[in-house]
Parts: sequence; structure tokens; C-alpha cells
Amino acid sequence: MAKTYFTVGPTELFPEVKQFLVEAIKEKIFSISHRSKEFEMINSQTVYELKKLLNIPEDFYIFYLGSATECMERIIQNLVEKRSFHFINGYFAGRFYNIAKQLGKKPYQNETNLKEKFSIDKIVIPNNTELICFTQNETSTGMAVNMKDIHKIKDKYPDKLIAIDVVSSIPYVNIDFKKIDCAFFSVQKGFGLPPGLGVIIIKKDCIEKTKLLKERNYNIGGYHNFITLAENAEKNQTAVTPNIPGIYLLGKICKMLNDRKIEIIRKETEEKAGLMYEYINRHTYIRPFIEHIENRSKTTLVFEVAINSNIIVDKIKRKGFIISRGYRDFKDTQIRIANFPVHKIADVERLLKAFNYL
Amino acid sequence: MAKTYFTVGPTELFPEVKQFLVEAIKEKIFSISHRSKEFEMINSQTVYELKKLLNIPEDFYIFYLGSATECMERIIQNLVEKRSFHFINGYFAGRFYNIAKQLGKKPYQNETNLKEKFSIDKIVIPNNTELICFTQNETSTGMAVNMKDIHKIKDKYPDKLIAIDVVSSIPYVNIDFKKIDCAFFSVQKGFGLPPGLGVIIIKKDCIEKTKLLKERNYNIGGYHNFITLAENAEKNQTAVTPNIPGIYLLGKICKMLNDRKIEIIRKETEEKAGLMYEYINRHTYIRPFIEHIENRSKTTLVFEVAINSNIIVDKIKRKGFIISRGYRDFKDTQIRIANFPVHKIADVERLLKAFNYL
Repeated sequence: MAKTYFTVGPTELFPEVKQFLVEAIKEKIFSISHRSKEFEMINSQTVYELKKLLNIPEDFYIFYLGSATECMERIIQNLVEKRSFHFINGYFAGRFYNIAKQLGKKPYQNETNLKEKFSIDKIVIPNNTELICFTQNETSTGMAVNMKDIHKIKDKYPDKLIAIDVVSSIPYVNIDFKKIDCAFFSVQKGFGLPPGLGVIIIKKDCIEKTKLLKERNYNIGGYHNFITLAENAEKNQTAVTPNIPGIYLLGKICKMLNDRKIEIIRKETEEKAGLMYEYINRHTYIRPFIEHIENRSKTTLVFEVAINSNIIVDKIKRKGFIISRGYRDFKDTQIRIANFPVHKIADVERLLKAFNYL
Repeated sequence: MAKTYFTVGPTELFPEVKQFLVEAIKEKIFSISHRSKEFEMINSQTVYELKKLLNIPEDFYIFYLGSATECMERIIQNLVEKRSFHFINGYFAGRFYNIAKQLGKKPYQNETNLKEKFSIDKIVIPNNTELICFTQNETSTGMAVNMKDIHKIKDKYPDKLIAIDVVSSIPYVNIDFKKIDCAFFSVQKGFGLPPGLGVIIIKKDCIEKTKLLKERNYNIGGYHNFITLAENAEKNQTAVTPNIPGIYLLGKICKMLNDRKIEIIRKETEEKAGLMYEYINRHTYIRPFIEHIENRSKTTLVFEVAINSNIIVDKIKRKGFIISRGYRDFKDTQIRIANFPVHKIADVERLLKAFNYL
């Protein structure tokens, strides 16, 4: 029997993906030119469904890139002259910070104490900061920043740009797009799709900053600079030949989720997360890594385990479920379990039963 | 009835793609972690089949990127300190040159006279050139540089690196990898796959140049710099979550082409190109754009037309075939027809019959 993936991404695909792909191949959608009217229609359909799903205002562009890591690189390259500020709550926040350094910027970092409740009140962001970067949901540690905290930052620093990595919390996370400038994700997590597509949601105004950087002779990159991306997005096109299957499937999945209603998906996500934390908590040697309930991710749950994680992952696998081990340094001492829209309540209940056999 | 795509890419998919995708979804291949042994096996299988197909030596890496345009950017960023040299035989060669300028380099360019036989003998490449760039097969103009000329360049300038864009000639083009350092392509042309994956084939030695650039504080990019890409390629991994469907399908198609024998595919490509040039030549108002037979592409054939290309494309479409119009400035005055391994001799014969009705 095929196993069910509860991994933090790539993960279980929506079962509908197969049919979407077969239909698209029959209709020869992956043969059409990315400069054709047909592609413009597919692209505008995806933009429409994604904006509807996440309540994204008109004054935002959707850019398609190769991965969330490329999103980080292009955001730094196109929005930062010298100073970005990074809240470091795990490995991927560190990656965002490292990329800023690799590109020759002088980023600030603030190391999050994962044992305390996350509070922005104590943190002073230097005046010369241009872009504040949050990894809203850290896939490596299971630490989630409450969106209210991020929205508060914009109130406190209205002149600074805010970029949020929502790779593993979207579409569950409820973003107020009036309070951020840029969000990005990849599709192989909460959208239950194959990997290979990164997406940036960006306020149109931000392009003015890119133009300024260009005027000042900063390297804003090749054809994935925000000026070229924006010019193409205006025509429902892309700067280069894109991952058309990825864009097509994202539109189809967003439409499906819109039909199912995002409020219901969000409610179910919270219900499933509640079940998981409550049930797994009862195990004597498994406990949530993040202590403060408010900062525990509801979409990528991370647990400390007192025996080698490999033993747990193997036993759960024999019951038909694939879960993730800890990330890098935490490989042996943690397990990670996804709770994405693709995972039904009944799946979660079956998974939790498997934990009985540990 | 579904139309047959003879467009220069994206183009007709190999009919086997559908079955490969359905099987992969059944096996949950797009759910596996890109850090798992299973992915390493898929990746090493693709590398094995691609290297076998193109006779790529052991001392070359295979890197996966988002598009051929990203390949251009990463090649310049990682192999050039100041000076690249570009033979400009069409729009995409110009794109490669423009990217070098965008990245703050000082590239040289040599405008190819498309009305003359291409000869490298008259061209002097300045001493301080670090990288010589060829668009071996120009999709925009149908101009192909004979591989013998490229191999001669390496004999003449053995100390300079050579990068070739083979986006729309691979796998037909027969490259002597002892005479080049780097080749790149995307999969939506000669490999008959959906778009979304760029591939760089690069001599391992080249990474020394990247390390030198890094030492000298040049910006070599984020996680798609050649040092990180090489470290991951050594482990059959990737720097970031890649387009796993693209990598998987490329391996499957390469295996299929290996079974069919590349020599036969190359012979058939020449035969089909011969049929097309001969037949279409007979039309009074359609003639090859490239005058010298040796420089006429065998994989992306470009013709000048005396009536608006739109009329021809429409008439051919009504007969069941999609062909491309000219590129940009040549949109109205040219047509472009692909001749890829996916196109069978019988398909070409049917297409040519459609030209009878013009």
C-alpha cells in the first residue's frame, strides 16, 4: 500500500493533481508558447484564483521564480541597497540572512530565543534598515511568528519594507496585505503540488525601490529583476520561459481551495493541529520543541524526542506514514510532522493511532 | 482533433510523458524529500542517462536551474571577472550579452553577418577575454554555428573558457566535450518536455575560477553559485528544492532516446531537415532566412515569407499543425518550424503536404 506523506515538503500531493496533469497534457497546454494569448489566460486565471484565495489587493504583482531560495535572493537584490534586518528563528531565516551577506549587503540579525514567547516589543530595528525579513513559519524549528506581531511592526516602522517567508504556512496563514510589502512561498508544501516553482507576492510600489537601485548602479540581476518581472506581469506574461505546469497546477489547486472555502480550511488546520499537539503530548518521550503555544506552528509541527528520531520515523513508516526527521543539527533528536490542507482529519486520526505503537 | 506542435519550443511533448507522469504520481515520486536517498537515485539516474546520450565525460557536473536564461546569468556570474566575448547571431545571443552587462561586466560582442558564411578565422578575440560565448543554434534566426568552428576556437584559444547555448539543438548537436567547458539548455525543446528546467553541463575545473572570483569578493550569487551547486552535485543532491518532475522526466526521456540510439536520431533529424528545406524551398514566396547551407539550423528552421506570416500560420493551423511566427522584429515576415526528435518523418511529411494548400 502506498504510504501517506506527512513530511514538511515535498509532501503528499492533492489527489486531484494527477487528473489536472492528464487533462492538461490532453489539451496540449504544456506545448503552448509562453508568449501566446493562451498562456496569458492561464496565467491570469492563476493570479485571479491566488488573489481570491489569499485576499491579495489589486496593487500587488505575482512573480514566478524557480524556488523560495531564488525568491530570497531576488528580494534582497531588488529591494535592499545595504541593510536588511532578519529575525533568526531557524535555518531558513539564516539562509535568507546568508544570502544578503553573499550579495554583499550588510544585514542585521536578531537571534530568536526559541524558549521564550516571541515578542517584537523588546527589539529595536536600526534606523537605516530598509527591509525587515520574517520567516513567519520556520520549517526547521516549527517556530511560527504570530501575524499580529508582523502587522504591528508595520505600524511601528511604516517607512520600512517588510518581506515574509510563508513557504510552509500558506495558504493557512492569514496575511493582512496592507501591513506587509512582500510575501513568498514555494508550491510543494501547503499547496500539495510537485516542487519547482517559487512565487513572490509583491506590492507594486516596491518596484520604485528597484528602479532606484538600478539608477545607483546596483546589480539587480538578469531577467528575474523586479523591473522586468513587473513589465511582464503587467501583460500576464513572464520574463523567461516559466514552469508552465507549476503555474497551471497552482491555479487549479487555488480554484479547488476557493470552492472549498479558505475559512473552512483554516478552521480544519487548527482543529488538526490541536489533535496532534494534544495526542502526541501524552507520549512521555515526545514533546513540542517550541514551548510557547502561541509560537507553535500549526502547519509544520516539530517535536523533541528522547530516543533517536530514526526509530520513531521507521516505526511510523511501517504503519503507512512518512514523517520528517529533525533538520540538520536536530536530525536525530527531533521529528517534524506536516499539517497541510491536503491532510484530512481522518488521515491525522490514522497517523495518531500509529503513534500508539511506539 | 488535437493539433501537432511544430513550434520552436515549448513544443509537442513526447507522448510517453503522460505515462511517465502518471507512474511517478502513483509511486509518489514527487512527494519524496530532495535530501533523501530516493532522490539521489533519481538524480544519479538522470545524470547517467544524459551523460550516456551526449557522451559527456566523467569530469563534468550537471547542474539544474530554473531556465536557460538563469543558466546564462549564473555562467557569467560564476565564470567571468570582467570580460566575456559574445558572437551575436540573434536575439538570444544578445540576451546572453545583455546579462553580462546587467551584471556589471564589460563584455565584447561580434555581430554575425547572417548573409555570409560564418567563419571564425576573421575574428580576433582580445587577449583579456575570459569566456567565449556561442549561441550554437539561434532559435530567433535559425542560424547554427558549425560545431567544428567552435572546436577550432578551443584549439586557437586553449586558455579561454568556452560556453555554448545549445537550447534548441540538443540532443541533435554532437558536442566534443574536450573542446568546450560549459554547455546549457532547457528541456522544452529537443527533449519534448514541459518547460521549467534549465541544465548546465560544466567541466569540474571551471569551479576553480568561481572560487577565485569569490576570493576576490565578486558576487557569485546565492545558493545557485557554482561552488554550492558543485558540492551538492558531488552527493547527487541539489542546492535548493529543485523541479523534481523535470529532473525525473529528463532521465526517463534520455533513457528512451538511448534505447532508440542517438546516431539514428541524428540521422533522422538530418533527413527531416533535408525534406523540409527542399520542399518549402519550392514555394515561390517562402525561402530560408539563412543563405549559407552550412549555417542553416537543422532543428529550428527559419523562413522569410513574402506575405504576412500570420496568414501562413493560420492556414497551416487549419490543417492541424502549429508553427511559430518570426521572432520579435521578424514576427510578420518570417515563420519558424521545429525539427526535434519528437517529430517523426511521417509527421513532417503530413506538415509539408499542408504547405501545398497555401
